[in-house]
Amino acid sequence: MAKEITSRLENYSQWYNDLVVKADLAEQSAVRGCMVIKPYGYAIWEKMQAVLDAEFKKKGVQNAYFPLFIPKSFFSREAEHVAGFAKECAVVTHHRLMNDPDGKGVVVDPEARLEEELIVRPTSETIIWSVYKNWIKSWRDLPLLCNQWCNVVRWEMRTRPFLRTAEFLWQEGHTAHASAAEAEAKAREMVEVYADFARKTLALPVIVGHKSPNERFAGALDTLTIEAMMQDGKALQAGTSHFLGQNFAKSFDVQFADAEGKLQYVWATSWGVSTRLMGALIMAHSDDSGLVLPPALAPIRVVLVPIYKSDEERAAVLARFEGIKAELEALGHSVKIDDRDTLRPGFKFAEWEVKGVPVRIAMGARDLAAGTAEVARRDTLSKETVPVEGIGKYVDGLLKDIQQNIYDKALAFRDGHIRKCDDWEEFKTEIQKGGFLLCHWDGTAETEQAIKDETKATIRCIPVDSVVCEEEGRDIYSGKPSHQRVVFAIAY
Amino acid sequence: MAKEITSRLENYSQWYNDLVVKADLAEQSAVRGCMVIKPYGYAIWEKMQAVLDAEFKKKGVQNAYFPLFIPKSFFSREAEHVAGFAKECAVVTHHRLMNDPDGKGVVVDPEARLEEELIVRPTSETIIWSVYKNWIKSWRDLPLLCNQWCNVVRWEMRTRPFLRTAEFLWQEGHTAHASAAEAEAKAREMVEVYADFARKTLALPVIVGHKSPNERFAGALDTLTIEAMMQDGKALQAGTSHFLGQNFAKSFDVQFADAEGKLQYVWATSWGVSTRLMGALIMAHSDDSGLVLPPALAPIRVVLVPIYKSDEERAAVLARFEGIKAELEALGHSVKIDDRDTLRPGFKFAEWEVKGVPVRIAMGARDLAAGTAEVARRDTLSKETVPVEGIGKYVDGLLKDIQQNIYDKALAFRDGHIRKCDDWEEFKTEIQKGGFLLCHWDGTAETEQAIKDETKATIRCIPVDSVVCEEEGRDIYSGKPSHQRVVFAIAY
Repeated sequence: MAKEITSRLENYSQWYNDLVVKADLAEQSAVRGCMVIKPYGYAIWEKMQAVLDAEFKKKGVQNAYFPLFIPKSFFSREAEHVAGFAKECAVVTHHRLMNDPDGKGVVVDPEARLEEELIVRPTSETIIWSVYKNWIKSWRDLPLLCNQWCNVVRWEMRTRPFLRTAEFLWQEGHTAHASAAEAEAKAREMVEVYADFARKTLALPVIVGHKSPNERFAGALDTLTIEAMMQDGKALQAGTSHFLGQNFAKSFDVQFADAEGKLQYVWATSWGVSTRLMGALIMAHSDDSGLVLPPALAPIRVVLVPIYKSDEERAAVLARFEGIKAELEALGHSVKIDDRDTLRPGFKFAEWEVKGVPVRIAMGARDLAAGTAEVARRDTLSKETVPVEGIGKYVDGLLKDIQQNIYDKALAFRDGHIRKCDDWEEFKTEIQKGGFLLCHWDGTAETEQAIKDETKATIRCIPVDSVVCEEEGRDIYSGKPSHQRVVFAIAY
Repeated sequence: MAKEITSRLENYSQWYNDLVVKADLAEQSAVRGCMVIKPYGYAIWEKMQAVLDAEFKKKGVQNAYFPLFIPKSFFSREAEHVAGFAKECAVVTHHRLMNDPDGKGVVVDPEARLEEELIVRPTSETIIWSVYKNWIKSWRDLPLLCNQWCNVVRWEMRTRPFLRTAEFLWQEGHTAHASAAEAEAKAREMVEVYADFARKTLALPVIVGHKSPNERFAGALDTLTIEAMMQDGKALQAGTSHFLGQNFAKSFDVQFADAEGKLQYVWATSWGVSTRLMGALIMAHSDDSGLVLPPALAPIRVVLVPIYKSDEERAAVLARFEGIKAELEALGHSVKIDDRDTLRPGFKFAEWEVKGVPVRIAMGARDLAAGTAEVARRDTLSKETVPVEGIGKYVDGLLKDIQQNIYDKALAFRDGHIRKCDDWEEFKTEIQKGGFLLCHWDGTAETEQAIKDETKATIRCIPVDSVVCEEEGRDIYSGKPSHQRVVFAIAY
């Protein structure tokens, strides 16, 4: 199986596409740009959802559900937002099909034209703030903290599974506050939830920072982001949290009576992560043999593969496996015994390797006699023979090691590919090699645009943690004074 | 609060609409027929999802995700299906908006017309079977058991929150099998999962049965249903499971090589329940004071309301509440202490009554001194003074009682409104009073249609459990011989 995966060196992009298919994560559908998320891929997404959802609820966020469709006129209400979002989207114009008068199949009924076209949500700020208008009357109704897990559609021209698809799954949080300070603090709190999730669950080191004004969400006063580095040195924006000021409150006339009875506009945030995280997960950790999954997200943490020459041997090994499985499940780990009788062990090994199962335990007649098993870890591809006695505890520790090791490896890779750069000629060469360049920037949109035009590099963020950036210097392009370094990279 | 709810006797339909709003479950949105599910309503739906999802997984079903959009041509592939489903639906015709040349807002870009229109899924058999074609090659790939939780859209003319909305949330299971017998058994197994869920979790007695051919799902050879009775005596179809034969496999050319290497078409089922269950839950159990929630689905099972005249009393009661809360949480119950200082206890009592919280505990200074608390149960609206010592165990038992009592009450109501009827004149009068009539039917679509035309009553199902129906007799309308009674009712 692994042989069919292109190597990263040969063609990183093809390696990614191969892996998505070979590891059974997703595939293209008959609908342009829309993917099918296969059961194995979806099981990983469900694990992400479960962890994030619990974190949101700890922060007092409640789930709700808002309509899929947004009236076209809503997009005209927030001027910046319309420019940023209302362009490439799916437009519903009719509500009925009819039998083709020519007798073949169905056609759109021209009589069933909608009075106002509906847009399939690309994001839900407009529809949600039109609803919040009814929910918020007084300071007692604030803060209002809602989230929804749903599908959204953006009519992307060039799509790639998980990274950029016309339809994708995500969560979008939308909060309303009585003060700017409280809303800003919430936007920051939620990006920290994402950073924490990325580090602990995805085993993905991320830099938290502000987007430059150019790269902000349409309608936001500030956008916070978590930026990760992929193995080709490109940046991937893995989650964003926006401080929206009073823009949407003003567009949809959402005011509250404060404690003195005075009417004020509400302050807002929104924040989201999507199935794009699946792309980040794949590209950050996997290798030429297939997927490498952090145990925290692996649908199967341990797979048990029996090796046998007779039915008796098979039965004896499988019986022993049941005990090991029970031991591991009692410790909270998901375990699969691969008892398929039509496949050779080597085939099974390759399959679970491609699928990134963190730990594989193999056992044959000789192991059985010796009271041992062969334990292989996916992240390092190393193997060890260990006593079956106490194997539950051993594997439990190993899984923790693997989770940490995957993170450490990604961190070492990233830190090995971040460097300061203070020379424009050097920048132009270095940026093409991948990695993050920490450079001085004069804070103007013009300079940012000029650098992008010449090199395709963008400012990924103005970091607020992970890398120290506040220092005096001169803009790498314009030479004007600068007070901080920012992260430049070529991004997905 | 409760005063604002219309009584059931006065206007059952208005009572329902009032309750949906007053209990903070859902509201209409700006988009015709699309509702907003509010946090309290969504929390109930999440509990339903959690229970069902775990049951599906126990049956070996895996979750996946398939595209929102279906190419129009797919609907022409399965002839019956197109007739049943491809009519009232949302049609996407364009993929871009542009600034209005007249300078006001946005308009649809006429250049961005799709080559083939896309239909927002009303159900996903067609898109899923187009995908299964790639997943199924051999008998080893079967059975294939997938489910998705998603939104679907059917352009209904007359909508009501939860019961009938243009967009709704649901799960749809789609399974593929090597034999007709296995697929039929799966369709039956899944309707039993629904029946079990309805009875144990929703506290809703249901009748399991087959739909008559007229009422089958478009493209199915058999449709199994669970039918519940609402408090106005009307029937509500709460879930269906379909045996689809080889119809979709043939339309999408899905064949597998059997053990002998011979190609055969695959056998299929599909099955689903939706946010309509929320409507069933509300209408089956609630009363003129508001929602009545079975503890299994209550987002808050126990609410604690302090009664006090001074800050000291408040602090003392709240401190005692923390202990009770910990005790109940340790037993697995969700508890809320309503410590809002701006509202009177009477207001709080009414609010939690409307929201259907199963148990309310109130405590004042006198209770504190006596070591007692007032425990009120929502289902019977009765109150008792009980010792705080051991209150956790007491309430734990009470919650079990309440779950059972809500079921028993609904069952007694239903059984009091099911009767045999063998006279057509009597039928015409009786059916208008509500309830289920068990009548002989000759098995023809003509008779069924004639009865529907005259009385609006439909055959809800040909029962396979709950009521004994196999006996010889004569059709209530045609007088022709019949071998079984079926359930007639006027339905939602």
